[in-house]
Amino acid sequence: MAIVNENFLKLPGSYLFSDIAKKVNAFKIAHPEAKLIRLGIGDVTRPLPPACIEAMHRAVDEMAHAETFRGYGPEQGYDFLIEAIIANDFAPRGVQLKASEVFVSDGAKSDTGNIGDILQGCNSVAVTDPVYPVYIDSNVMSGRAGDLQEDGRWSRITYLPCTAENGFIPQIPDIRMDMVYLCYPNNPTGTTLTKEQLKQWVDYALANDSLILFDAAYEAFIREDNVPHSIYEIEGAKQCAIEFRSFSKTAGFTGVRCGYTVVPEEVMARTSNGERVSLNRLWNRRQCTKFNGTSYVTQRAAEAIYSPEGKKQVKETIDYYLENARIMREGFIQAGFQVFGGVNSPYLWLKTPEGCTSWQFFDRLLNDVHVVGTPGVGFGPSGEGYLRLTAFGKREDCIEAMKRIAKWTK
Amino acid sequence: MAIVNENFLKLPGSYLFSDIAKKVNAFKIAHPEAKLIRLGIGDVTRPLPPACIEAMHRAVDEMAHAETFRGYGPEQGYDFLIEAIIANDFAPRGVQLKASEVFVSDGAKSDTGNIGDILQGCNSVAVTDPVYPVYIDSNVMSGRAGDLQEDGRWSRITYLPCTAENGFIPQIPDIRMDMVYLCYPNNPTGTTLTKEQLKQWVDYALANDSLILFDAAYEAFIREDNVPHSIYEIEGAKQCAIEFRSFSKTAGFTGVRCGYTVVPEEVMARTSNGERVSLNRLWNRRQCTKFNGTSYVTQRAAEAIYSPEGKKQVKETIDYYLENARIMREGFIQAGFQVFGGVNSPYLWLKTPEGCTSWQFFDRLLNDVHVVGTPGVGFGPSGEGYLRLTAFGKREDCIEAMKRIAKWTK
Repeated sequence: MAIVNENFLKLPGSYLFSDIAKKVNAFKIAHPEAKLIRLGIGDVTRPLPPACIEAMHRAVDEMAHAETFRGYGPEQGYDFLIEAIIANDFAPRGVQLKASEVFVSDGAKSDTGNIGDILQGCNSVAVTDPVYPVYIDSNVMSGRAGDLQEDGRWSRITYLPCTAENGFIPQIPDIRMDMVYLCYPNNPTGTTLTKEQLKQWVDYALANDSLILFDAAYEAFIREDNVPHSIYEIEGAKQCAIEFRSFSKTAGFTGVRCGYTVVPEEVMARTSNGERVSLNRLWNRRQCTKFNGTSYVTQRAAEAIYSPEGKKQVKETIDYYLENARIMREGFIQAGFQVFGGVNSPYLWLKTPEGCTSWQFFDRLLNDVHVVGTPGVGFGPSGEGYLRLTAFGKREDCIEAMKRIAKWTK
Repeated sequence: MAIVNENFLKLPGSYLFSDIAKKVNAFKIAHPEAKLIRLGIGDVTRPLPPACIEAMHRAVDEMAHAETFRGYGPEQGYDFLIEAIIANDFAPRGVQLKASEVFVSDGAKSDTGNIGDILQGCNSVAVTDPVYPVYIDSNVMSGRAGDLQEDGRWSRITYLPCTAENGFIPQIPDIRMDMVYLCYPNNPTGTTLTKEQLKQWVDYALANDSLILFDAAYEAFIREDNVPHSIYEIEGAKQCAIEFRSFSKTAGFTGVRCGYTVVPEEVMARTSNGERVSLNRLWNRRQCTKFNGTSYVTQRAAEAIYSPEGKKQVKETIDYYLENARIMREGFIQAGFQVFGGVNSPYLWLKTPEGCTSWQFFDRLLNDVHVVGTPGVGFGPSGEGYLRLTAFGKREDCIEAMKRIAKWTK
């Protein structure tokens, strides 16, 4: 009988969202009249930008006629999209990329999950804590995580706590790490790094020959000047970083499925004999073997994000969510809470009241004001004592929730 | 510095299609006036069925309004599509599947490539030869293939030759294999197995606790009664087989990207301690961690394949390609060639004339009649002495090519 990848069996069930659903359902049965407001929702709610809709209709019509029909596209993505990405997301920030360094995909979750395919199972891994669970789980699957310990940490993963105590600035490790995952603007805390802070990571990676896996899925929410949109704005990053981008939160593509990954030709790893190997070539081989390109219709929709109308419409959507974030942020602050994030990010990271755990505060919010958040501890041990809220809901719900919070804490 | 997955470095470049392109380009420069006919094309050319086009337009419109917008879908696919798949592809053939056993994806290449994630790197692997290169390359990447030998075979892979001598029926191995890849109707040979022949494989797998990875991407081309559309038509297959399906060749989805994989709950692998583990649970975990579902618009297009109009339109398209195959098959037979496949398959597998290698015959066809095929040796050592032709071209090109062949061989 074939032997399974036993690393999979080490993974505990992922119960966070099902546990939340159970509590919410129990509450609804007990209080059928209560109007629940969900501020924990991790998915966008605004429709696609009209420019994308029009582009998709045109692309669908092309598929209806033999003369304009498109079959297999390049595994790496169509040039029209790659050129738009480079010209709009990078060139204006002084970052020069070759077309062969950009790989269009069906989303950042696939790419952040699959990137480990090209790296050996023995590499050491550091993550910020709290963290997007895919970084951990995909490394468990490939054997880099070791064993799950009683404190909720994996034995071979180095956790870099990000809490109010250190201003959510992960401390540079005092040992060499092979791989470091950084996500900024951060999911789940909504916090950012300045250019100077990110430069310290690039310097660390260059000095230690570390590989930075930089997840910039929330880049479109950045409004402050000194927050880098791409790690390649930092000198030297092309020698040490792979960057993941997503259109999911940028333009509401969570159900459309498109993202991209930048693997500069200069970024290297090595063989056990010390020979240096370009990861660009390996990722290209991985994608050509195990992926067959992103839907043509989807790629035309993504291209439309970069049209003048597309840009305007995307900005309007992001502004809508950021205004939600502002309302929530101010509401919680006025109510006496400590709130982080929510400025260059759709996520707010709320400190629970003194002595109150993530789940206890979740229960209180649910039962007292009928508002649903996400317990921070679900994102890692350092998330204990926090609650994640998101700005992806409806404006009127945000306002109503803040009224309830104000009344509750008065 | 991070260490690469060194298995990637064992992979030779995949030069088959670039070598073909170089030869074709050189020919075009030398003979600018010649009208080339490409019969080696592996991609569909007919437009999408109108039912799919309409469904995609409707789905795009849903994405334009907040009330009907769809964000993240289930990683496993929407119920509407899974239910249509079960009701149309399996129930009429007496195969009962649960919704939780069907995983919708962005295509069979992704799934056949990624399935190895859930299996240990030490499992033994058998493939038919010639073979779809993804089975080999993905196993090289995960360390199951061993080393590439001078004869073009990988040291730890068991090759099951399929040639005219054995009627393209792979011989059941006399040793136990952990994993066996079978693709029927076969790419590249276009040949099929009868129910009785496939039953021998299921019996072998059950007796030896082997896992069959059954690729049925070309199922829609089956027209003969005794050729199974699904391996689950064979009793016992649910205990030993995973089946991969694709809409690429069925309904022209090569650029739309959708397929699905069936992992029955009964199909098991084991831990090194001998504990039995359901692969369904592991594949579900893999997909939930490293995949975020297939585009909603694409899934609506796939659903439309199963509507009454969709079925009729798909049949018309497949009939068109099969008529191309018939014309080519008869043309080559009348010209004195030995031809295999092309009956329940879009692929024809042509025996090259006595003493003529795959590449020599490729060159002769190109230079003498300006027809482009694919050298069989590119699909594996047992492909030497064959040429793959496909029926995905235009009708008039197939007819014109056969005229040239007839004149050439007269």
